[in-house]
Amino acid sequence: MLNFTFHNPTRIHFGEGQIAAIAKEIPSDATVLIIYGGGSIKKNGVYDQVVAALEGRKVFEFSGIEPNPSYDTLVKSLAVIRENKVDYLLAVGGGSVVDGTKFIAAAALFEGDDPWDIVAKQQRITQALPIGAVLTLPATGSESNTGAVVTRHGNKLPFASPLVRPKFAVLDPAVTLTLSDRQVGNGVVDAFVHTMEQYLTYSVNGKVQDRFSEGLLQTLIEDGPKALAPETKEDLAVRANVMWSATMALNGLIGAGVPQDWTTHMIGHELTGAHGIDHARTLSIVLPAVMKVRREEKREKLLQYAARVWNIHDGDEDARIDQAIAATEAFFTKMGVPTRLSHVDLGESDIEPMIVKLAEHGMVKLSEHRNITPDVSREILRVAL
Amino acid sequence: MLNFTFHNPTRIHFGEGQIAAIAKEIPSDATVLIIYGGGSIKKNGVYDQVVAALEGRKVFEFSGIEPNPSYDTLVKSLAVIRENKVDYLLAVGGGSVVDGTKFIAAAALFEGDDPWDIVAKQQRITQALPIGAVLTLPATGSESNTGAVVTRHGNKLPFASPLVRPKFAVLDPAVTLTLSDRQVGNGVVDAFVHTMEQYLTYSVNGKVQDRFSEGLLQTLIEDGPKALAPETKEDLAVRANVMWSATMALNGLIGAGVPQDWTTHMIGHELTGAHGIDHARTLSIVLPAVMKVRREEKREKLLQYAARVWNIHDGDEDARIDQAIAATEAFFTKMGVPTRLSHVDLGESDIEPMIVKLAEHGMVKLSEHRNITPDVSREILRVAL
Repeated sequence: MLNFTFHNPTRIHFGEGQIAAIAKEIPSDATVLIIYGGGSIKKNGVYDQVVAALEGRKVFEFSGIEPNPSYDTLVKSLAVIRENKVDYLLAVGGGSVVDGTKFIAAAALFEGDDPWDIVAKQQRITQALPIGAVLTLPATGSESNTGAVVTRHGNKLPFASPLVRPKFAVLDPAVTLTLSDRQVGNGVVDAFVHTMEQYLTYSVNGKVQDRFSEGLLQTLIEDGPKALAPETKEDLAVRANVMWSATMALNGLIGAGVPQDWTTHMIGHELTGAHGIDHARTLSIVLPAVMKVRREEKREKLLQYAARVWNIHDGDEDARIDQAIAATEAFFTKMGVPTRLSHVDLGESDIEPMIVKLAEHGMVKLSEHRNITPDVSREILRVAL
Repeated sequence: MLNFTFHNPTRIHFGEGQIAAIAKEIPSDATVLIIYGGGSIKKNGVYDQVVAALEGRKVFEFSGIEPNPSYDTLVKSLAVIRENKVDYLLAVGGGSVVDGTKFIAAAALFEGDDPWDIVAKQQRITQALPIGAVLTLPATGSESNTGAVVTRHGNKLPFASPLVRPKFAVLDPAVTLTLSDRQVGNGVVDAFVHTMEQYLTYSVNGKVQDRFSEGLLQTLIEDGPKALAPETKEDLAVRANVMWSATMALNGLIGAGVPQDWTTHMIGHELTGAHGIDHARTLSIVLPAVMKVRREEKREKLLQYAARVWNIHDGDEDARIDQAIAATEAFFTKMGVPTRLSHVDLGESDIEPMIVKLAEHGMVKLSEHRNITPDVSREILRVAL
């Protein structure tokens, strides 16, 4: 196991009806900005529950946060915050809304010239407005971690700070019942790949981390498809398992003390930046190719993954690895996401511009070994064709 | 899954050399009381590392915390704290030292007449001195949770408050290399039974929690014996896995959203209170008997435990449960702990006084079903003879 520091102080309120817990989390004299996306929360009852819980506080709203939240949208909130002396942000939505709220929290108190520097120059965040989150789409883990991704002019870039970690997060699985199949499928795949980025590297004999990761993968494999199947999709226990898995997949725990990869994400960001493909769908395209291209570097863990997650014990090593990759692809397909560039109408000629962008974004030494150069990324994308 | 709130803000510094992290955790103007036990930390180098990390701060010491820390010892620290205006407590030791420090932290700022009321009357704690912990014996999980157990006149009683949760904990597995086999065995068994108390109940379809628990149990089963075997006991990776398992076993995570039992602990406390038996050794005696007596209530989980933790798939249900209980006992035996009252020279005539004490301590509705009366506890102890 590698040395690590682990700290996750977000208070999680999990279960049906927990939106009411906001009332004890946000100070009664706070001026709150509710931040949300396209307005689905007004149709599914979440908005009403949130407003009821905030009773007595001055409340303002900022909506229209899009998937892959854009800088241009987010900065519009700053005037609302300034004008109304907002001192608490409440994100109500999925990962994009929470990510966008993290950027707003930092930008609102940013003392430099241009808040884009937070992302572009990775300028250190020294203060941020407090954030609470009501999660409506289990996927990114953003509700209890320090990271976020913001997009500007086709550049999708990450930043992180402990100061933008939500103080609390409400996870009510009942809220996820109104999600579309596409949103559910994307969310499950996103959580799955988050786990893989922290698991499918090389062994440092971190037995707890490995087994926790395997437990999350197995849970997503079992209950992800159930969250889509007509006969089980209304089952709150299924939704709860998916929701808790997604949070645990990226709250810092399973990655503490072990190497991490993140190649799939960094390449995937370019697919979203250039072609607007849903985040999870970039991951389901890139991960199988990473598994194939990095087969030797990841051999030991691929075999462990085959055995423990998929119960694959027959055949020689290479056959078992092949089966595990095929099983991963089949799982993605079952979740309704693409596994090839051709599935999203991209081809050979689309690869080079993305490689240029990767280099432009400094993504030239990816993976747990820091040895995935743009040339290797090109190979990965070719294998994903 | 049941509704839950999960919050664990303790910052964990894990790995060799991490004692130095104390320097950034405790304010430089703090007046610190180092609290420890019998003095082993002065022999194994831990004390020197702690003192070096605290350089520049006013530092006082309070030692002599015994296993199952006694009220009479703990209250002696209060004069030292008052006299020297101590404002930060640093526990350096195992679970008993951390538990004792938690009591001291609350007692030092207690506004009632008698600090024993914190335990005896479960009087609410409204303030406490901040605590840091340098763990030397992985076992209880006390380094990042809110609970503690204190003993007075043969009464071993628990209390809990978020205010006594350590702000930070240093977990350096190298520190555990000087432990005796007895301490290592006890620690592994303690962590194992903590996990079982939160796992071996009835299913609420909490798949993440179940799998995390199973992962901890498997890790302890694999690496616990290695921490005793001459050829592997110096392996830091083994020690690290045991240490991280013990923290995760009782930091609130695996028990969030699932029923919990704790019968074994409550009966075990009486064994320690009346006969001074090591905490873990009471658990290894009581748990197998609880598994036998509560076989029907726990049937589903016993079968899951047999299959997933012990890989037992042959035979009918009852045969598989029998094998799982036998495997648990064999594991305890391998860790050098007793599994019967007779192993610690107790017999039939010792049972009744403990049942009287249990009732006296209000432990009359134990277990996940709140239906273990003193009569059932008597049966459990008889089965453990």
